[in-house]
Amino acid sequence: MDPIAYVNGSFVPLADAKISVLDRGFLFADGIYEVSAVLDGKLVDNASHLARLQRSVGEIKLRLPETLDRITEIQKELIARNKLENGLVYLQVTRGADKSRDFPFPKADVKSSLVMFTSEKDIINAPVAKTGINVITVPDIRWERRDIKSVALLAQVLAKQVAAEAGAGEAWMLQDGYVTEGGSSTAFILTRDDVIVTRQNSNAILPGCTRKAVIALAQERQLRVEERSFTVAEALAAKEAFITSASAFVQPVIAVDGKTIGDGKPGPMATRLREIYVEFAKATAV
Amino acid sequence: MDPIAYVNGSFVPLADAKISVLDRGFLFADGIYEVSAVLDGKLVDNASHLARLQRSVGEIKLRLPETLDRITEIQKELIARNKLENGLVYLQVTRGADKSRDFPFPKADVKSSLVMFTSEKDIINAPVAKTGINVITVPDIRWERRDIKSVALLAQVLAKQVAAEAGAGEAWMLQDGYVTEGGSSTAFILTRDDVIVTRQNSNAILPGCTRKAVIALAQERQLRVEERSFTVAEALAAKEAFITSASAFVQPVIAVDGKTIGDGKPGPMATRLREIYVEFAKATAV
Repeated sequence: MDPIAYVNGSFVPLADAKISVLDRGFLFADGIYEVSAVLDGKLVDNASHLARLQRSVGEIKLRLPETLDRITEIQKELIARNKLENGLVYLQVTRGADKSRDFPFPKADVKSSLVMFTSEKDIINAPVAKTGINVITVPDIRWERRDIKSVALLAQVLAKQVAAEAGAGEAWMLQDGYVTEGGSSTAFILTRDDVIVTRQNSNAILPGCTRKAVIALAQERQLRVEERSFTVAEALAAKEAFITSASAFVQPVIAVDGKTIGDGKPGPMATRLREIYVEFAKATAV
Repeated sequence: MDPIAYVNGSFVPLADAKISVLDRGFLFADGIYEVSAVLDGKLVDNASHLARLQRSVGEIKLRLPETLDRITEIQKELIARNKLENGLVYLQVTRGADKSRDFPFPKADVKSSLVMFTSEKDIINAPVAKTGINVITVPDIRWERRDIKSVALLAQVLAKQVAAEAGAGEAWMLQDGYVTEGGSSTAFILTRDDVIVTRQNSNAILPGCTRKAVIALAQERQLRVEERSFTVAEALAAKEAFITSASAFVQPVIAVDGKTIGDGKPGPMATRLREIYVEFAKATAV
């Protein structure tokens, strides 16, 4: 079936889903995006993603063209139209298409663009959940507002291409000797004394929705969590490492730059947190 | 007249010029752009822009979908179709539209996208050439590869919006106490001892084509040029300041953050360099 996308008020076949070349998302990366997982046809942790969407657009003074309620309706209609059982709903809002190309914001009568599409993905049964992934490290060369989920993703593209060429599942980005985060995920370690460590939120990283949920779920279970920066050396000396993201949930990391972590197999904590997250996701999806 | 744009092999009315929502320029800012000025229907310093295009795409391993000769032909055909006398030709190349959204580069059979359009602009008779512009300063929060002319321009959009709201003509971006460059221009000062100073090329700034031409033209005339970083304090103590860009040539700067430079009027050096550049541009346009 040809998938259906949503573009500025219309549901159209994805192959025909187009935006103006003057759209500021295309010309200036002047836009924000979110990705929500879908399990059994329902949206996972979607309120968290829409809250982050609202925060991101606020930070760049971009007006949403629709209410969050309406955006949720469109997400659900796309899921229904595409008969999507398991996968992702991608949404992107940009500052619209003005009559010409000019850096400052357009006048108020230029409406923001809203684009959405879905893709199928069996997140729960992903083989890497059992095998774990290798990660490689690259310098973090991104801008200073990584807390904004903008589509200015070229640095992440280049980082994840380096990972792909190395046969790795993710690139961890390093700044001042510390891991900031993955190209499209949050980095975690489990220390030798069983503390789950992940970097504190700041402008240096994206405030991950799955990160937030996993921390809360761990704390509910009396697991110790510390939000602080860690180095690659600490990761290599750790019992376990893992990443979280909306599109992969929790994924064990078994090696960094070719050096194994622990016994080089997915650890029990990563595996348990994955199970806990999947349970949470299924129970709360709407 | 409805202007004509070029999109991936076709000349179409700008209002109908569209690209796929899966285009990596839209989803990831995975693209490069250039802007060439047009005077009397001819392209200004275009070889310099195309050389920089080739360098930029090389840095991100993006293949041009057409040869530079063919790109020049399309630029000229657009100028002819739009009967453009004075203005700009914008071109953008992106890593194309894959079947789905995935960070790493698509397979080799996904062709890069090429989009071009023109706009009218009377650069030579711009009133600000006579009045000069105010600039404001903002922190430079961009990524670390500013030498690549990518469309990941959100930081520049935000900087130039701050300038626009302040009634200023440009934002100078500051890093470690020094001016890097303007949001879409190169920053220059003329010191008290008549040295033209502009920041040296590096990953911290875009290697400006107009910057390069102005330096060469100044040196041909035995004017002293130093390529080094300068502070706002040095700019305020300078005789003159000015900016260069393909879309504005040379523009005098008369104040920074509300403090006047020199006597607060366009200086003779900026005015002279502008005349020299215009003469060069007209004489060499093709």
